[in-house]
Amino acid sequence: MTKTFAFVLYPGLTALDLIGPLQVLGALQDFGLGVEAVTVAADLEPLGTDTSVRLAASHTFAQVPRPDGLIVPGGAAPTFAALADETLLGYVRTAAETAEVVGSVCTGALVLGAAGLLDGRRATTHWTALPMLERLGATPVSERWVRDGRVITAAGVSAGIDMALALAAELAGQDAARLVQLGIEYDPRPPLGPIDWPGVDRAPFEAWMAGEAGKALADRPDLLDRLLPQAG
Amino acid sequence: MTKTFAFVLYPGLTALDLIGPLQVLGALQDFGLGVEAVTVAADLEPLGTDTSVRLAASHTFAQVPRPDGLIVPGGAAPTFAALADETLLGYVRTAAETAEVVGSVCTGALVLGAAGLLDGRRATTHWTALPMLERLGATPVSERWVRDGRVITAAGVSAGIDMALALAAELAGQDAARLVQLGIEYDPRPPLGPIDWPGVDRAPFEAWMAGEAGKALADRPDLLDRLLPQAG
Repeated sequence: MTKTFAFVLYPGLTALDLIGPLQVLGALQDFGLGVEAVTVAADLEPLGTDTSVRLAASHTFAQVPRPDGLIVPGGAAPTFAALADETLLGYVRTAAETAEVVGSVCTGALVLGAAGLLDGRRATTHWTALPMLERLGATPVSERWVRDGRVITAAGVSAGIDMALALAAELAGQDAARLVQLGIEYDPRPPLGPIDWPGVDRAPFEAWMAGEAGKALADRPDLLDRLLPQAG
Repeated sequence: MTKTFAFVLYPGLTALDLIGPLQVLGALQDFGLGVEAVTVAADLEPLGTDTSVRLAASHTFAQVPRPDGLIVPGGAAPTFAALADETLLGYVRTAAETAEVVGSVCTGALVLGAAGLLDGRRATTHWTALPMLERLGATPVSERWVRDGRVITAAGVSAGIDMALALAAELAGQDAARLVQLGIEYDPRPPLGPIDWPGVDRAPFEAWMAGEAGKALADRPDLLDRLLPQAG
């Protein structure tokens, strides 16, 4: 039986957070391998992203109330604004009640956390937002992606591709996932090599991300208090 | 001075071909590093992709006639259909006249080739379309991305991310490119490992891609003849 995966759209999201895993699960759909990858939003009008392209969903939230899988992409300030969007959180909570897989990419994990879906679970997010994930009740881990029960979360932006290929292998088998990998020619060669994590000074970047939260949630001190350690 | 990069949209393109490099050059824009990454199309209405999401451009072709850089994404049958789209090809030809960088991802290279921009140049494309690239007058190479003069072409789909990071390093320096890489957390870990190229039987996949061309260009034997070896 075909499993429907709903990718959640909201204004200002980071485009690659969405498109990476959507391309992977969409390929399973193209190959007839038991997955339907739809995009859902409050309505079908084009929404802005963090790039110049606008995105329009294939379905409304109301049209896909009970997906088999749910994937929430992240972003910067607009994702924090989404934490105050009760329509979005309501959809995520309801859809997650019966979903077999509840997933996120990047700071999409904070949306899952704000919806109460990460309590006590191992999870990851964009490296700059790991402290916030802990504040939301999750056990943050620095991994490319992590699965804890039915919850699967990916690290920042491009990590959604790796998570989705792992999910494709679960859903349709390793041969199918390898076929998708071949289709999207995913044989990455970062031209400047891997990230030099020990050389990264995290504090200023974490402060930047906290500033994005402060900007988006200036009128919601209750939410900011859930995300950030209290000042002084 | 800010350099404008125009990413070309057309119906049915492969979403990740576009979004990978757009996210990278868009990050340079966010950091104020001398790049504006716009999306251009015949009009601003949402266009279908090879996934369930629709995309809408930020500008019309007419609004960005002379970009400093041009990037053409690829796809399957819809990209072959684009080879018969004179509005699109006309834009690509005109924009390329003065652009400092003319780029493609995946089968977007075939659009560049059909526009006469690859004659005698080393170029790459999705691995299944390399024979067609040769038919269009290019010297096909199996590399992740290749630069020949002002023309830069990437291999299939996900390779656009690597190409764009290399371009970011050229445009804004290696430190800036590393910052973008950190921002999109591009430290890939394909869960099933790298592609096993020697184990790939290319013939059936090349035949599939040729079939996509035949499907899209059934009424354009002249174009098919440019792409495919004659039967019999």
